[in-house]
Amino acid sequence: MRTVHEATGLPADVYSAKCPTREVLDRIAGKWTVLIVDSLADGTLRYTDLRRRIDGISQKMLTQTLRQLEHDGFVARTVYPTVPPRVEYTLTDLGHSLREPITALREWVETNINRIEKARRATSS
Amino acid sequence: MRTVHEATGLPADVYSAKCPTREVLDRIAGKWTVLIVDSLADGTLRYTDLRRRIDGISQKMLTQTLRQLEHDGFVARTVYPTVPPRVEYTLTDLGHSLREPITALREWVETNINRIEKARRATSS
Repeated sequence: MRTVHEATGLPADVYSAKCPTREVLDRIAGKWTVLIVDSLADGTLRYTDLRRRIDGISQKMLTQTLRQLEHDGFVARTVYPTVPPRVEYTLTDLGHSLREPITALREWVETNINRIEKARRATSS
Repeated sequence: MRTVHEATGLPADVYSAKCPTREVLDRIAGKWTVLIVDSLADGTLRYTDLRRRIDGISQKMLTQTLRQLEHDGFVARTVYPTVPPRVEYTLTDLGHSLREPITALREWVETNINRIEKARRATSS
């Protein structure tokens, strides 16, 4: 049964450009979001842990994506008053809920990489 | 058990920037890919059907994304020699496999939009 978007009373529909679900999809459907949410699946991580874990992510993209995830209520940030400050990130309940389809996507890609490369060779020939 | 990437003999790992899974994730983790793959879940659609179904997608993005999906072996294209030509798209077996996590992500967003908006109001206050 279709979820009703409370603010408008309309059915939630990512196919509609005006529906807020479209904007949410745009933000969570991205490789950095997938990698960050998946990384936090097992528990709290420090900013530096995430930087180290996610090969190739720039400081700018990590900060920007984490900020967005916090704003959307998926991630909670804790700053400890140490010197230098220690900053930790953890998934909220909403974030833990999101991680299921996110982790499924990541697992699908890894599990199917050989099929994908074989298919590419077939379409290239 | 971790999938081994046949071409390199290394474990498939999206966390590694050099692993081809990273590039695949980058291409499939995007709103247009999600909407196109999800649209084709129920069967063959013409280019014009996709254009109509996916509110807000430009001709350029639709064409580009379909081309990429074809190249990666997720979508098959059939051109009928009518005047004007009729072009139809359908998911390959690999595409049908991909659609499971893709559809799960779309459903998650629609089902949770109210929770997401409530969380946003909480983080904004």
